[in-house]
Amino acid sequence: MKILNRKNLCPKEDRFRFFSSKRSLAVLGGLIVFLVFHAGEVFASGAAASGEVSDILIGLVIIILAAKLGGDLFERVNQPAVLGELVFGIILGNLTLVGFDGVEHFKTSLTLEILSELGIIILLFQVGLESSVKEMLNVGATSLLVALVGVVVPFFLGWGVSAWLMPDANIFTHIFIGATLTATSVGITARVLKDIHKSNTREAKIILGAAIIDDVMGLIILAIVTGVIGAANQGTELSSLAIFLVVAKAIGFVFGALLIGTYLTPRIFIVGRKFKVSGMLLSLALLICFLLSWAASQLGLAPIVGAFAAGLLMEEIHYKNVPSFGDNTIDDLIEPIAIFLVPIFFIRMGMIVDLKVFGDMNVIYMAAALTVVAFIGKQVCGLVVFDKSLNRTAIGLGMVPRGEVGLIFAGIGAGLVLNGVPVIEPGVYSAVVIMVIVTTLVTPPALKWSLTKNDPDEKIRASEEGLNSQATP
Amino acid sequence: MKILNRKNLCPKEDRFRFFSSKRSLAVLGGLIVFLVFHAGEVFASGAAASGEVSDILIGLVIIILAAKLGGDLFERVNQPAVLGELVFGIILGNLTLVGFDGVEHFKTSLTLEILSELGIIILLFQVGLESSVKEMLNVGATSLLVALVGVVVPFFLGWGVSAWLMPDANIFTHIFIGATLTATSVGITARVLKDIHKSNTREAKIILGAAIIDDVMGLIILAIVTGVIGAANQGTELSSLAIFLVVAKAIGFVFGALLIGTYLTPRIFIVGRKFKVSGMLLSLALLICFLLSWAASQLGLAPIVGAFAAGLLMEEIHYKNVPSFGDNTIDDLIEPIAIFLVPIFFIRMGMIVDLKVFGDMNVIYMAAALTVVAFIGKQVCGLVVFDKSLNRTAIGLGMVPRGEVGLIFAGIGAGLVLNGVPVIEPGVYSAVVIMVIVTTLVTPPALKWSLTKNDPDEKIRASEEGLNSQATP
Repeated sequence: MKILNRKNLCPKEDRFRFFSSKRSLAVLGGLIVFLVFHAGEVFASGAAASGEVSDILIGLVIIILAAKLGGDLFERVNQPAVLGELVFGIILGNLTLVGFDGVEHFKTSLTLEILSELGIIILLFQVGLESSVKEMLNVGATSLLVALVGVVVPFFLGWGVSAWLMPDANIFTHIFIGATLTATSVGITARVLKDIHKSNTREAKIILGAAIIDDVMGLIILAIVTGVIGAANQGTELSSLAIFLVVAKAIGFVFGALLIGTYLTPRIFIVGRKFKVSGMLLSLALLICFLLSWAASQLGLAPIVGAFAAGLLMEEIHYKNVPSFGDNTIDDLIEPIAIFLVPIFFIRMGMIVDLKVFGDMNVIYMAAALTVVAFIGKQVCGLVVFDKSLNRTAIGLGMVPRGEVGLIFAGIGAGLVLNGVPVIEPGVYSAVVIMVIVTTLVTPPALKWSLTKNDPDEKIRASEEGLNSQATP
Repeated sequence: MKILNRKNLCPKEDRFRFFSSKRSLAVLGGLIVFLVFHAGEVFASGAAASGEVSDILIGLVIIILAAKLGGDLFERVNQPAVLGELVFGIILGNLTLVGFDGVEHFKTSLTLEILSELGIIILLFQVGLESSVKEMLNVGATSLLVALVGVVVPFFLGWGVSAWLMPDANIFTHIFIGATLTATSVGITARVLKDIHKSNTREAKIILGAAIIDDVMGLIILAIVTGVIGAANQGTELSSLAIFLVVAKAIGFVFGALLIGTYLTPRIFIVGRKFKVSGMLLSLALLICFLLSWAASQLGLAPIVGAFAAGLLMEEIHYKNVPSFGDNTIDDLIEPIAIFLVPIFFIRMGMIVDLKVFGDMNVIYMAAALTVVAFIGKQVCGLVVFDKSLNRTAIGLGMVPRGEVGLIFAGIGAGLVLNGVPVIEPGVYSAVVIMVIVTTLVTPPALKWSLTKNDPDEKIRASEEGLNSQATP
């Protein structure tokens, strides 16, 4: 039916001219609008015959269309594709504002949520593939310093803003807002670096290393703050042992995965090459990626920490020139899966943004203050990088986006109750959401600008680094 | 934690010898057993911290391990990999028989079910890619004849067996059992043909064409029988208009998709090539695949019918030598996604088999009779192929597996109630399940044997056909 309608969109006489004209984007734009509204009809009738599979299929169609249309439009104005995906996701997710709720259930679909999680896992695995454990250790000290500053400064700045604007609030509210500002959403930065082919620069490695350490520290802070509030509710205090266990598990995973992984990974490939069945190389890569992601999640860390570690562990030397593994690299094989799954994450991340929070001026003031300190707090990170040949502005910018991590922190705070009052009240939560939106949307163009403004030089250095890193795996 | 344990599995002194020895399979076998039982602990404790995503990650790890281990073991004894996946799936799904229920919830996970559905959609899309609309029309008359015979003969044989063994049962029970035997599960056959590189032989095209027509006819029969029983329950009769609508929708989809698709597909690629964003070729292919799968499901057809049609519509001429699409073919790009998703379908299909149904002798008699007529009914298909140069046994064998389609039919029958009695009673349902298991497990080795017994000749003809079909797209 739909196909017939698409055909009817263009009258016979100028159909060919139309398709070959520059209005091609308009055609696909019309198609997406049509599909979105048609999906609405189908779901509104509640008669999707074969149920959830059918919902997911049309969901994927709409997501692919929105991602490619958004990505293309933004690349045409020299912005990263990921920004287009986020913006088109926001549009899709806020169609209720114009009275259309046909895609609302995509936000609550567990399957789409898991597909989007698999997407971000695959993206971080890909980014990990472009580096190695050794290269990460080379920038380890710098990353650690950047991460430490990027946690401590925003934490106290956030605390200060909260105490200044809400003098009557509980101290735990200030602490929680401070904690929310410490998070770094590595997904956005990783994607921008990939989009502009800068993933293997030293700046990228420092940012990614710091973001991973940040994730670990953010978890620790969150666990401690949550534990302290829980204990305060019961009139007790959190035991030092409990705090120690949280810290030990998180740090233990990162070092454990990299140390044991460095030992085990080549041996797993040696076992894998004996298999006669096809598709072994990609299956092994996915196996290790999902296994480490799962292990991270079991320890309460974000699965992407495990996925990034898995990517770091894979080296071409493990599988190159092994006939049963074929000629493709793991990068080649993982790319189509990334093309399929990664946009689902960014479209969905846009969809869950609720534009209605921009309506309250008090919220806007709070949001503006938080956003300013969110930027300042992470820009300070760049200053502690001593090597002046590096682009320190870019390093600071790369740490800015709070993304889904900030939302998760704020969401947990909204769910915590102390003396009958939520630690993060609805208005404060909305302000955090706005801070997250702004830091997430501003970073991609800012980072791209910063890393490509002197592009001729940058390009040469980046490609040289690329060659070096391949020559010394 | 697990990684540490894996390390401890092999004592330091002989670790290297162990990994490089022929016992490598044993190592991975041990790993899978360990993981399966470890997964059990985690789930039993009910403390999977980050919830469903974590469950899916460990589920994927276990599925990938089981699929590759099973596939490899069966390829070593010269059987198709898919049989190994099915058998290892059956083992995983029946671990409750040895008192272990740590992976039981994989059977009911909606997300794994949808991932497996996406897997079979991708597989049928891949198989469709290896052929074209024109080639399918060339074998169209033969396929139609094969499909007709393959529906009519098993239908009346099944009716006869049911009337013979259950003389007291309602006539609708006989009709339903007949209908259950008409189904062809094209997934198994398509996978075997792909595993042995025979997807582009004329036999393969006839089987796949017939299986698709079968799916359409099976749907029509099911809709009519269900409608007649529903009407009988209300003391009325099914209107001819309702029957006509079912038939028209199903046939209309297949012809509509192919006719309009042939016109629209090249034009969609012309629009797509103007996009500057990366990953457009694969995104367009997935878009059309999911769109047609969704359209099929909206008309009550299996989504795989749409996916196969989408594969038929894609021709290399649409995108070859277009710089923005890169050098890879759609086949190259879809393969990694297939390596990821397809085994999920076959492992899951094995998992939902309940071995306990083999315990009742009455059920076994019924099952044996049904299995015999299931084979005979589809073997007759081969006899109506007039071209004696074709492998008619293979064509008949390719139609034998009932797979999930048979299970779905029987399941619907078990849910239908006439005069207070289920149309398909539990014992009869179990017999149908056994028939489905046997036809599904026997087909892969039988089909492989039949298509490769004169392999030197076959190989030349197959590769010639492959060249021809590429030269005349």
